[in-house]
Amino acid sequence: MQQDSTEYEFQQPHLPVDTRVEDLLDRMTTAEKAGQLVGTWAGQLSEFNDVSDVKAAITDHHIGAAATFGWGGSLDTTVDDVVETVNELQTYAVEETRLGIPLLFNVDAVHGHAYVANATVFPNGLGVGATWDTDAAERAANVTASEIRATGAHQNYSPTCDVGRDPRWGRVFETFGESPYLCGELAAAKARGYQGDGIEGDENVIATAKHFPAYSEPERGEDASPVDVSEYKLRNTFVPPFERLLEADVESVMPCYNSINGEPAHSSERYLIDLLRDELGFDGTVVSDWNGIRQLCDEHRTAVDRRDAVHQSRVAGLDLASVGHVGHVEALVALVEDGDLPESVLDASVRRVLEQKFKLGLFEDPYVDADDAADTVGASDHQDVALECARESMTLLQNDDILPLSGDEDVFVAGPNADDLVHQVGGWSVDEEAHVAGDSIRDALADHTTGTVTYERGASMSTTEDVEAAAAKAAEADVAVVAVGENWYLHEFGPEVQSGTKTGEFPTRSELRLPEAQRELVEAIHETGTPTVGVLVTGRPLIVDWMAEHLPAILMAYYPGSRGGTAVAETLFGANEPAGRLPISVPRSPGDLPQHFDHLAHPAPIGADEHPDSYDPLFEFGHGLSYTDFEYADLSVSTDVLDADDEFEVSVTLANVGDRSGTEVVQAYSSALTASHVPRVRRLQAFERVTLDPGEERTVTLSLAAADFSVYHPGDGHTLEDGEYRLRVADETETVTVDDAAL
Amino acid sequence: MQQDSTEYEFQQPHLPVDTRVEDLLDRMTTAEKAGQLVGTWAGQLSEFNDVSDVKAAITDHHIGAAATFGWGGSLDTTVDDVVETVNELQTYAVEETRLGIPLLFNVDAVHGHAYVANATVFPNGLGVGATWDTDAAERAANVTASEIRATGAHQNYSPTCDVGRDPRWGRVFETFGESPYLCGELAAAKARGYQGDGIEGDENVIATAKHFPAYSEPERGEDASPVDVSEYKLRNTFVPPFERLLEADVESVMPCYNSINGEPAHSSERYLIDLLRDELGFDGTVVSDWNGIRQLCDEHRTAVDRRDAVHQSRVAGLDLASVGHVGHVEALVALVEDGDLPESVLDASVRRVLEQKFKLGLFEDPYVDADDAADTVGASDHQDVALECARESMTLLQNDDILPLSGDEDVFVAGPNADDLVHQVGGWSVDEEAHVAGDSIRDALADHTTGTVTYERGASMSTTEDVEAAAAKAAEADVAVVAVGENWYLHEFGPEVQSGTKTGEFPTRSELRLPEAQRELVEAIHETGTPTVGVLVTGRPLIVDWMAEHLPAILMAYYPGSRGGTAVAETLFGANEPAGRLPISVPRSPGDLPQHFDHLAHPAPIGADEHPDSYDPLFEFGHGLSYTDFEYADLSVSTDVLDADDEFEVSVTLANVGDRSGTEVVQAYSSALTASHVPRVRRLQAFERVTLDPGEERTVTLSLAAADFSVYHPGDGHTLEDGEYRLRVADETETVTVDDAAL
Repeated sequence: MQQDSTEYEFQQPHLPVDTRVEDLLDRMTTAEKAGQLVGTWAGQLSEFNDVSDVKAAITDHHIGAAATFGWGGSLDTTVDDVVETVNELQTYAVEETRLGIPLLFNVDAVHGHAYVANATVFPNGLGVGATWDTDAAERAANVTASEIRATGAHQNYSPTCDVGRDPRWGRVFETFGESPYLCGELAAAKARGYQGDGIEGDENVIATAKHFPAYSEPERGEDASPVDVSEYKLRNTFVPPFERLLEADVESVMPCYNSINGEPAHSSERYLIDLLRDELGFDGTVVSDWNGIRQLCDEHRTAVDRRDAVHQSRVAGLDLASVGHVGHVEALVALVEDGDLPESVLDASVRRVLEQKFKLGLFEDPYVDADDAADTVGASDHQDVALECARESMTLLQNDDILPLSGDEDVFVAGPNADDLVHQVGGWSVDEEAHVAGDSIRDALADHTTGTVTYERGASMSTTEDVEAAAAKAAEADVAVVAVGENWYLHEFGPEVQSGTKTGEFPTRSELRLPEAQRELVEAIHETGTPTVGVLVTGRPLIVDWMAEHLPAILMAYYPGSRGGTAVAETLFGANEPAGRLPISVPRSPGDLPQHFDHLAHPAPIGADEHPDSYDPLFEFGHGLSYTDFEYADLSVSTDVLDADDEFEVSVTLANVGDRSGTEVVQAYSSALTASHVPRVRRLQAFERVTLDPGEERTVTLSLAAADFSVYHPGDGHTLEDGEYRLRVADETETVTVDDAAL
Repeated sequence: MQQDSTEYEFQQPHLPVDTRVEDLLDRMTTAEKAGQLVGTWAGQLSEFNDVSDVKAAITDHHIGAAATFGWGGSLDTTVDDVVETVNELQTYAVEETRLGIPLLFNVDAVHGHAYVANATVFPNGLGVGATWDTDAAERAANVTASEIRATGAHQNYSPTCDVGRDPRWGRVFETFGESPYLCGELAAAKARGYQGDGIEGDENVIATAKHFPAYSEPERGEDASPVDVSEYKLRNTFVPPFERLLEADVESVMPCYNSINGEPAHSSERYLIDLLRDELGFDGTVVSDWNGIRQLCDEHRTAVDRRDAVHQSRVAGLDLASVGHVGHVEALVALVEDGDLPESVLDASVRRVLEQKFKLGLFEDPYVDADDAADTVGASDHQDVALECARESMTLLQNDDILPLSGDEDVFVAGPNADDLVHQVGGWSVDEEAHVAGDSIRDALADHTTGTVTYERGASMSTTEDVEAAAAKAAEADVAVVAVGENWYLHEFGPEVQSGTKTGEFPTRSELRLPEAQRELVEAIHETGTPTVGVLVTGRPLIVDWMAEHLPAILMAYYPGSRGGTAVAETLFGANEPAGRLPISVPRSPGDLPQHFDHLAHPAPIGADEHPDSYDPLFEFGHGLSYTDFEYADLSVSTDVLDADDEFEVSVTLANVGDRSGTEVVQAYSSALTASHVPRVRRLQAFERVTLDPGEERTVTLSLAAADFSVYHPGDGHTLEDGEYRLRVADETETVTVDDAAL
């Protein structure tokens, strides 16, 4: 059915994209336009769709996007299957439709293309946060983009810009932690990695900043529950990472599931038009989260029915309904035909969607090559990047002179996460061990000691197994390594069939302590007297107060990805110097939440002595030990008094005073002494990873600007106030004065 | 120094108050005006002031208000001392100053005049909340007002309008619980009780609605920490009780300590002028909380120094600086003299303050009579009102056929709160047992059984004592009553010297479970096999999951006040039918907070089956058992379709199908099926206490209006939307439709 390829402007690659877009748009019927704004799926979602269902949706409803792989219930998992389906469907779309518009394929490759078998799987978000390394994050995303694109997809629903403010939330592992600044820097790095110099590049994909504007501090830590937030907090805590992504020209933004102050984001003109487009100047596509439209009528109760939900989301500026399927197309067509929605609303969205398809080169070549895909996915140089990222994430929380191990120990290994690749990669990954090309902690440990390695799991997540056997083996060893933590999960710690744990049982939002079974195992091993190292393979900062009190060493490994076993083993044996730093506070108690290093100043009405500290975590934000010792001295600033436009430098001398090489993350914090709006007690302003040899000393210089002290004031925007600002690096402080500010 | 009393208009009682105010204002110097807007104290606050210090402040700084009794560190506690100081200072103010303006005395009599020895002490706020009885609340406040006024004070810093949304907060015991509606109804009843027909009445006092606008959900549950809240939530959850108080013509409002969205309430034009005065129409006095001004510079960091803090608070409309002392006067005078603050700002406040003094009749007679005060404070008819209130508050959480006791049992009594009158009255009361005219649980139990009563405390708050002896005695008894819970405390569970427990130890914000020692005691007694009744004397809904699982009966007694021992004993023995209902949810875990019956609707992205309930408390809001059984039937509404102005009736048949008389609290909830803003899953709309004889059946009719379904929409105000609203009483439901609404 395709037209002669020389006939129309949209088919001519040498013409400017906007010419092609307008030409094609002019030729489209209302129904064809509606179809371009809706995606469908193959696999199990609300219903099972197979390839023929997708074809039917293309023929009957002009569907323009599809997700057949790269997510949880998708049809295809192996590279061969993935490529075959993609090519079959693209052939169908190009050859069997009137205008031959290729499909856009989207995936959930949030930490590598991890829903494809044997792909490279990076540490999940919090682990990347722990690296404090934007280059590493960018490299990881770049590798991921090449694997995605090689398998035929074009848009990745990543990076998350959500600031992880509540460890009860089942998606906190996807975030880069609690600092808006750190989140913004790392998310921007990932967007650069995905999009490269632009989506015209054939190894680049559309990055999606999500979940706009404030997904990550839902009430009770319950996924998708309401967010109640002031403009002051919204704009100073949640929106900054998105602003950073827009500066990085991110192509797409996804709204959050939650209602914000009573308004569901998916139907919010306030957030999606007034804020995102008009104020922040975003001109890419807004893509719905899966089911985000249906929830408006069925769960938020702000739309009377599906048609109303579609209408509201379109008025609010939605471009692509990710898996709206044919019902969304039908509703759109009816809304336009009935005069309830101007066709110009569709046109505006179709322009954005088509522009991306043209820029991606899909009209020239929508197909992928099976051999190339097989060579690309999980390539060994990709795995090396994943290993390096995992190494950098390793965060040594505690070490009472037991680590690093010397390499000749008899090691006993235990715990539910010592030999489980699915737990190790965590959510948003394949959930079958056979599909993970990686190495477990247990296996990797064996590569690092000349002694024997014994193993007894001892406990699953919440059930003890042969604890006695574990203790007996531990007693025989020189050192015990117990890997505890959490399993693979999504959202509210489910679904059961994939997580392997029952809804309401650990891991769950209300419990941040390890379950009884895991605690019992750790205690039994510790009681043998064999020095015991706790390794935390977990999506969240668990409350490990007993371990902190009793074990000589604790290593936070997060979900370290497919090469995480090696990264853990290398770190325990000193082949990798631990240099991860906590991107999120580890609380002492669920009763202390929310627990943030950057809380606002406030009174203590009956006196500070009678008032427990606001911020007293078990391990604080930014914490992480090295095997060597660092000393800071001579903090100085290049200018004491700053104009609004001034940039300045903060310098500090860092010395490695230990006897090993090591990497430190230099962290600069600021605090306004007085302000018109209550200031945060500290803000992270700059950081740098610095590696020093034993005895080496270096002056580390961080670049700041007066504008970095700006605070968003509702009604006035980002505002820099005159006054004194205290800078702190480690225990060193300096004060600078902003005078005559006028941004 | 006083002028001839016939000379000036302000001295002539027959003239209208505003004439007298203007006359007096005209005669005042700037310094005298400033002094009228500031109070001082006698006793221990930031420093110790005695009566001579107060006199010096009057002479040197024209101070217009004083607090010498009725608060924690005050100078006087016994009625005789209180009256003597009041009369001495009033004599001084009237006779030794140029204009002879009497002092205004203010007190913290939040649950009775409880800082005066042997006064009538009512249940604290949460206990009053549990009565669901506005008449009882009004009677209690009326009694309190007469005791306050008899001792010479004129303004009470009560009622609290704070909606108790976080049990970690150390002041939740002062609230009427988590329902904005219940809080508003009970606070309005208390305001009516304090102010009667107006403060011209000589047994009435100025009521103070506090703490405006949103004190009660501070971050982390930490007292006075920042509140971050949307306009949607602020106006639908926190402000409604204040609106209810303004309808009841409350004379005074106190701002909260917190910053709201970065703005400290004490310096907020947005809240104190734009909202409180301009939008809500308040024309009484705004009085600072103690230290509320100093905190602006010292802790919130939004003022550069004390003078700036004073300036900001005055620009924001503060009238009376409660204990600003002479420094506040000096700053005020300097601000006016330097031209930084128009004298008209002072004039406006002085008018309000003087108007209250004239209405109170202070210019005619500022003195009190010692004999009258002694007869009034703690009078036996007052104590009867306190007992009745305590009875009504008793909330039977659990009863496995063990209660009521028959009256011939040998009873064993234990626990830190069984025989401690200070714990029993709780915070905002005298902290010496000798000053509490009341009866403990232990003593009262002995009055209700013909059997023996044995006692062994067994544990203090956090330390076990002779648990073995307790268990041995329990084993000998027919029934054991263990009174556990919390001690006397304020704010962040301190101060130590009064609470008797160390800062950071239980009770504290991060721990809602009973401490180990108390749990051990309960478990040891339960293990004897003697049926064990748990009595909770506590300011907060503690997590008592073990008790709920193991004990046959649990009675929630709150802080029941001076006659609380009798109320508990009467309830256990059936002389009082339990009819209290929880005004706040009892959570299962601190990880579940915030836990509210009226949370907003929201999605469950991976399906409701995989998503633990949002509201799954151990004991839910509104819960409370009776000794008889009630059945509901035949819910009906007088009209199915409502106009915006319609009132209507909800009727339900309630039958006492048990064999005892009993009282039920009929509760009507509503829920909007669809709305423009995400609706609450349920709202409390009406309630009524109903007492029925065995076998009696009655049709209970609750009056509602369509307007009750209104929701505050930011920008649009209170808005009633067309649509369906589901009404629920017990398990009965009915739906009404609002059509053509136009409020």
